[in-house]
Amino acid sequence: MKISVRQLLIGKPLPTWRAAEERLPKILALPIFASDAMSSVAYATEAIMRNLLLGALALHNIVPITGAIVLLLMMVATSYRQTIFAYPSGGGSYIVAHDNLGKIPGLTAASSLLIDYVLTVSVSTAAGVAAITSTPVGHILAPYRAELCVAFIFIIALANLRGVRESGVLFALPTYVFIFSFVSMIALGGIKYLNGELHALPPPSLAPVPALQLPAAIFWFWILRSFAGGCTAMTGVEAISNGVQAFRKPESKNAATTLVWMAVILAVLFTGTSLLANYLRISPSVNATETVVSQIVSAIAGHGWFYYLIQAATAAILILAANTSFAGFPRLCSILAHDRFMPRQLANIGDRLVYSNGIMILAVLASVLVLVFHGEEQLLLPLYAVGVFLSFTLSQYGMVVHTRRLKEKNWKTSALISGVGGTVTAAVTLVMAITKFREGAWIVVLLIPILVLILLKINRHYMQLADQLRLPSERPTELPEMKNTVLVLVPGIHKGVLPAIQYAKSLSPDCRAVYIEADPEATALIEERWEKWGQGVPLVVLESPYRSIVQPILKYLDEVVGEHKRHIVTVVIPEFVPARRWQGILHNQSGLLLKLALLFRRNIVVANIRYYLEK
Amino acid sequence: MKISVRQLLIGKPLPTWRAAEERLPKILALPIFASDAMSSVAYATEAIMRNLLLGALALHNIVPITGAIVLLLMMVATSYRQTIFAYPSGGGSYIVAHDNLGKIPGLTAASSLLIDYVLTVSVSTAAGVAAITSTPVGHILAPYRAELCVAFIFIIALANLRGVRESGVLFALPTYVFIFSFVSMIALGGIKYLNGELHALPPPSLAPVPALQLPAAIFWFWILRSFAGGCTAMTGVEAISNGVQAFRKPESKNAATTLVWMAVILAVLFTGTSLLANYLRISPSVNATETVVSQIVSAIAGHGWFYYLIQAATAAILILAANTSFAGFPRLCSILAHDRFMPRQLANIGDRLVYSNGIMILAVLASVLVLVFHGEEQLLLPLYAVGVFLSFTLSQYGMVVHTRRLKEKNWKTSALISGVGGTVTAAVTLVMAITKFREGAWIVVLLIPILVLILLKINRHYMQLADQLRLPSERPTELPEMKNTVLVLVPGIHKGVLPAIQYAKSLSPDCRAVYIEADPEATALIEERWEKWGQGVPLVVLESPYRSIVQPILKYLDEVVGEHKRHIVTVVIPEFVPARRWQGILHNQSGLLLKLALLFRRNIVVANIRYYLEK
Repeated sequence: MKISVRQLLIGKPLPTWRAAEERLPKILALPIFASDAMSSVAYATEAIMRNLLLGALALHNIVPITGAIVLLLMMVATSYRQTIFAYPSGGGSYIVAHDNLGKIPGLTAASSLLIDYVLTVSVSTAAGVAAITSTPVGHILAPYRAELCVAFIFIIALANLRGVRESGVLFALPTYVFIFSFVSMIALGGIKYLNGELHALPPPSLAPVPALQLPAAIFWFWILRSFAGGCTAMTGVEAISNGVQAFRKPESKNAATTLVWMAVILAVLFTGTSLLANYLRISPSVNATETVVSQIVSAIAGHGWFYYLIQAATAAILILAANTSFAGFPRLCSILAHDRFMPRQLANIGDRLVYSNGIMILAVLASVLVLVFHGEEQLLLPLYAVGVFLSFTLSQYGMVVHTRRLKEKNWKTSALISGVGGTVTAAVTLVMAITKFREGAWIVVLLIPILVLILLKINRHYMQLADQLRLPSERPTELPEMKNTVLVLVPGIHKGVLPAIQYAKSLSPDCRAVYIEADPEATALIEERWEKWGQGVPLVVLESPYRSIVQPILKYLDEVVGEHKRHIVTVVIPEFVPARRWQGILHNQSGLLLKLALLFRRNIVVANIRYYLEK
Repeated sequence: MKISVRQLLIGKPLPTWRAAEERLPKILALPIFASDAMSSVAYATEAIMRNLLLGALALHNIVPITGAIVLLLMMVATSYRQTIFAYPSGGGSYIVAHDNLGKIPGLTAASSLLIDYVLTVSVSTAAGVAAITSTPVGHILAPYRAELCVAFIFIIALANLRGVRESGVLFALPTYVFIFSFVSMIALGGIKYLNGELHALPPPSLAPVPALQLPAAIFWFWILRSFAGGCTAMTGVEAISNGVQAFRKPESKNAATTLVWMAVILAVLFTGTSLLANYLRISPSVNATETVVSQIVSAIAGHGWFYYLIQAATAAILILAANTSFAGFPRLCSILAHDRFMPRQLANIGDRLVYSNGIMILAVLASVLVLVFHGEEQLLLPLYAVGVFLSFTLSQYGMVVHTRRLKEKNWKTSALISGVGGTVTAAVTLVMAITKFREGAWIVVLLIPILVLILLKINRHYMQLADQLRLPSERPTELPEMKNTVLVLVPGIHKGVLPAIQYAKSLSPDCRAVYIEADPEATALIEERWEKWGQGVPLVVLESPYRSIVQPILKYLDEVVGEHKRHIVTVVIPEFVPARRWQGILHNQSGLLLKLALLFRRNIVVANIRYYLEK
């Protein structure tokens, strides 16, 4: 019954040899690994504009800032493209930083990414749910935002537990609808612009902010802040380099091609959106009542079916952005577990050839986060993206060291791109951490080193374990002798204990029966019957003035264990198994209590011999 | 740590020989067994008056009705006094009915009492909490009524878990304060009346109901209903007869004396209250804003300290009434368990020489009831008292049979008292069940036979069990041979598995090592190392195409078990025990999973051999 519910939800187990078949074609890999990056098109332009407004800068600065971000995106993508070829087994920032910069930078990159994966799931489902609950129809769901987020998180987790291919198929359609509807919007806007059919919107009823002559330092601070705000468009770019092994052969080539596609699509959508926003003189609404994308599409195509298509696709991709983390987090955990920095269970592939444990942990952590923050993505946003940019930086500096060491063709150009990219992302990391520090980025700044310490501590334990378990190179001639004493507990003398006595007798020549004396008057009768039924095993009677079953046995066990060196005591407990489940409550659970009491005792082995009742 | 919290709450375990010392002197037994009966003085007079008002009968009928109830009380008490001497080992209605009328009447009496004990706890704590929350100060607690009830239930349960004597001391004071303050109120009222200082209250502002000339049938229906309403004063009278064994020696004599005291005090308090209510022409307030007792005491003594003393003592005794059930329910359960009608665990005496399991079950059931009914005692009242009167009836008819059989001195008078008493209580049971049927009494009418069936079913199981376990009178010359095969699971070859192999080898000549092949490429190496370290035990390699550890073992076990008749397979699982608790999560839990999977398999014994890590 239990197994069939499980199979209904996540499907039948898959054999190991099918792993190669479960690899992804590029057409499915793109939506899985790119939905996070793509989804940022829905808000990146707006993020830049809001920062410009806050700094009282002219909105037309959006164009050069978008250009700069696209340039940075290209550099980072190029750097990761090199990584894919240099490290075809996957692992992205963690592997690159660990391999080229050392253990601590590697673990720092890994910790940053892990934290950000969790945040991505929380932020993106919260944003997607907000897109639903801010429509007139979805408004009634507003009080259940956090619960809706958790529900979406578990739907995505379930799809991922079903397996890589199946979740790819599920999530491909919304991602492609998003891409094509946005491309159509930009194309339609471009055509209308060329035909002179498109006109700037009337300025908002608010008086426009006068373009002041700001001191250069303040001007550049706000330009940088706007730039950093727009950089959230780049989160998710590292995902493909982590998951090279999920691609069909030749893995590196396919992954690199997919990365290029993703970067180009992202650049086109982002640039197009920013250009349209600029041409249409759109200004972000003060109370965030209408998104910038919503304003653009209604200016170009009105409020028809196309408008609703774009809105629906936006909500869908925001929620699906979480899926990229579900591809990345478990893979990174398994790589860390393989390197003995995380619990071994995370390295295991589950029934469906995915890292089930990692998927479930991510779902639980992200759900907790959503519930703690009541599903409000505005509270979560300041924590977001710092980690990603830190890992970008470490990865790119790692690639600089890598290319310098190998000195392959054109290594100087490669190193230059990674170096400049790394320096810019380092600057973005700093700007993000400083400007959002008090709103929540401090949590992440604090968590990263803590997580690094935990990973190091886990690693130390596994290293010590290996030391303790290592066998000597020479086999010793003889192992030291081990003595086994068997105690069989006799609650009374009846048919149910006979097989237990017989079994106990077979285990060791030193076998003793133990009887707890609850009522001293009954002991004589028990001893008399033991003569007849005890199969020659000596009977030990333990007094129990406090009527406890467990205490006298523990005391006696301590005595017996002390009788010899290397002494193992096997406690045989006879148990009834009732014919029907409900009858179980009609029997004393002293066997269970005793088992629990012996759980943490050294040199004691508990064996239950069951006697099956027939009715 | 766990033990010390437990000891802090309920005290140190007590040895069995102290049981005699824990017996109760009469001065402590009275508050424990009488608080339920006493507490009804707080509302019985009012219950009669309300029924009279509902039937538009004159309120002065209170005097003859109270007289009739006191008469009935005396009959029932006399009958139970005989029971105490006839059945000095306790058991009350159940034992008497079972012994004289048969199994089904006995179980019916037991079921009725069990249900009523639970109801008493719920109703009386709810009434006590209502007394608190209806004061101006307590009003802020009104939204937490149900939670407060549960808190009081658990405080009383805890006191009872500490032991009979200690809970007696705790509860004695409020009971005696209640008795003495009520006696003082009645005495003061009597003196003032004799001095002519006491005057009837002015009639209430409502126009008094004209005393109509009712048809005789209707008149008697309402008289009966009022009588039945007032009969709730008698609940709890049976408690002492259940608990004779809690008294000091000579048990029967002491218990009988305490019963007489209780009946006399109850009669005095009840009669006095009704007489004062009648003389003062008190009428129950329409919205139950002020209780009858409150009106009486304020008419006699004004609103001074005495008024508040009476109110506080009333609230306290209402809550403490629950304590009588905590004395009765676990004792009745243990008697039923001893007779094999209830799970054996309920017969056990706990650490503190009380029936801990029964106490905890009562606390849980009463709490659930309170929570389901949101702590509103008005909803619970219709369910109440039907069970008690059914058990009174069965007990008294049982005593008729008993006295007729033994034919001791004055047996005819005894039989007459019990017979008349039983007939009256039978009538009261019927009136209660019918008039309150739709308001909730149907639940109890339905539950009693269901509970009887459950008790019968449990009894059947224990009888069948005894049959199955009974040893033949002649010992067979030889038990059929039993074969033991030992399988030791080898997750890898390292220091941690060596003791497990050594142990397994010692258990049986047929010992095999089992290795699950997760990665076929690693098997050759394992086999090679096994040559060196396997201590001569043959190695069985099981394929696992789905990477599961449990499935291949289960399949192999089925094969091995089938090899012989009477074949027991012992599975030895080596386990690490980490030096620190947190390290546990760093190890695979496959051993635990396997143990769970084997839990319900026949002829399989699981033994864990632990390897202790040092750091």
